[in-house]
Amino acid sequence: LALRAANVVGRVTGFDRDRARAERARELGIVDEVAADAKSAAENAEILIVAVPVRAIVQAVAEAQPPAGCLVHDVGSTKARIVREVEAVLEDPCRFVGGHPLAGTENTGPESADRHLFRDRVAFVTPSAKTRPEIVQAAEDLWRAVGARPERIDAVRHDDLMAAVSHLPHAVAYSLTSAIADFGPEAVGLTSGGFRDTTRIASSDPIMWRDIFLDNRAPVAAMLERFEKHFARVRALIEAGDAQGLERELSRIRDERRRILG
Amino acid sequence: LALRAANVVGRVTGFDRDRARAERARELGIVDEVAADAKSAAENAEILIVAVPVRAIVQAVAEAQPPAGCLVHDVGSTKARIVREVEAVLEDPCRFVGGHPLAGTENTGPESADRHLFRDRVAFVTPSAKTRPEIVQAAEDLWRAVGARPERIDAVRHDDLMAAVSHLPHAVAYSLTSAIADFGPEAVGLTSGGFRDTTRIASSDPIMWRDIFLDNRAPVAAMLERFEKHFARVRALIEAGDAQGLERELSRIRDERRRILG
Repeated sequence: LALRAANVVGRVTGFDRDRARAERARELGIVDEVAADAKSAAENAEILIVAVPVRAIVQAVAEAQPPAGCLVHDVGSTKARIVREVEAVLEDPCRFVGGHPLAGTENTGPESADRHLFRDRVAFVTPSAKTRPEIVQAAEDLWRAVGARPERIDAVRHDDLMAAVSHLPHAVAYSLTSAIADFGPEAVGLTSGGFRDTTRIASSDPIMWRDIFLDNRAPVAAMLERFEKHFARVRALIEAGDAQGLERELSRIRDERRRILG
Repeated sequence: LALRAANVVGRVTGFDRDRARAERARELGIVDEVAADAKSAAENAEILIVAVPVRAIVQAVAEAQPPAGCLVHDVGSTKARIVREVEAVLEDPCRFVGGHPLAGTENTGPESADRHLFRDRVAFVTPSAKTRPEIVQAAEDLWRAVGARPERIDAVRHDDLMAAVSHLPHAVAYSLTSAIADFGPEAVGLTSGGFRDTTRIASSDPIMWRDIFLDNRAPVAAMLERFEKHFARVRALIEAGDAQGLERELSRIRDERRRILG
């Protein structure tokens, strides 16, 4: 939708395993036509964008069999395994480059499409030693066309970074929601904006997040462990009734947040 | 500000320990005049609203020495101790009733005042056995005047509920921000909306939150423990690579969140 609005693509062919969803995308004007399968969707394509849950990306590229010369790009939230395996299923891996825009909401489906979603957001592009420079350039141009800021990053570093700034917050938001639900029915309807914001991403698609957590298991596990240490410190200060230590810790954290937002 | 906009109060006198802040409130038209101390602010008052960090409320009421017949109401985020102690410092505790609107942002100071803040939000009112019914009614009328929905609740139950839906999310947001900051400077500027939302309340006032955590220590500690169990379960599913169990858990939690929002 964003690429169309930017007038940088011609005919757009869509394919989704869920035929009804694909048809809705066509009705909404997001795609011009719906293909019967991945292979016919990619036939004669100049650009193939794979936007499916991370565990389905490699299979989708294999099924699509994109024609020679076609730029192949994915938008999955994890990168190292995907880049390695997509390169392995393509005859000419040099025309593939992994991608991941730091943009999205907890909503899914064609109705949630937003042509402004990528504006001013970072879009990671993860070339490997095999990727052709023109392919990297072409992918970056697509992101610029929709208003995003492309950033090149190594796929392994990308996954470590995402475990910290995205996958950990999701695991924490799910755990937090689960603990509050466990408190009991009294909480229903009696929440504030704090609850709404801290748990918003716990409404994300369970299959998408199951796959991200499992795909990036080791870096995520390391961040979960790191979180536990920081949580234990805050907890200890509260339980000890250490007013001075707690104020110092909360002030430090508030300042850190400002710094992280850049 | 909201009470003025609703035309239900006459002259508004403000007092703040920080004289410059009080003056800014006057310049912004939030109060008509600034008193030199709490006692002169409360002189001849018909309504006294105490909006200071929870650990300062009892002292503020004691200093104000509100005149006979004056409705005394606070808006602190914890209630059991405050209600008990304010009642103890007042000669006629029957005209005091505790309050807590479920509304607020991470911002502080008169510039952050928003006349629409309370619209459609729950405002807890926590009468005790001592409170006069007309006083409860008067406090509830004030909340209705600014668009809030007053709810009567026992002070101890209020504190348990807040430990679950508000204090736990704050402790988690602080811990999460701390863990991400600890990951390193690579994260600076590379966060998404998920980070921004889940950690927003970690930008809250450290003194206000130090006091809330300590004031409600036992219920907060119980919720921190509950959270740890749920976090451990999500972590175990990820680390075990249990795709089916993880999908089931994330789906259940997503549904619970919808239920809690009511």
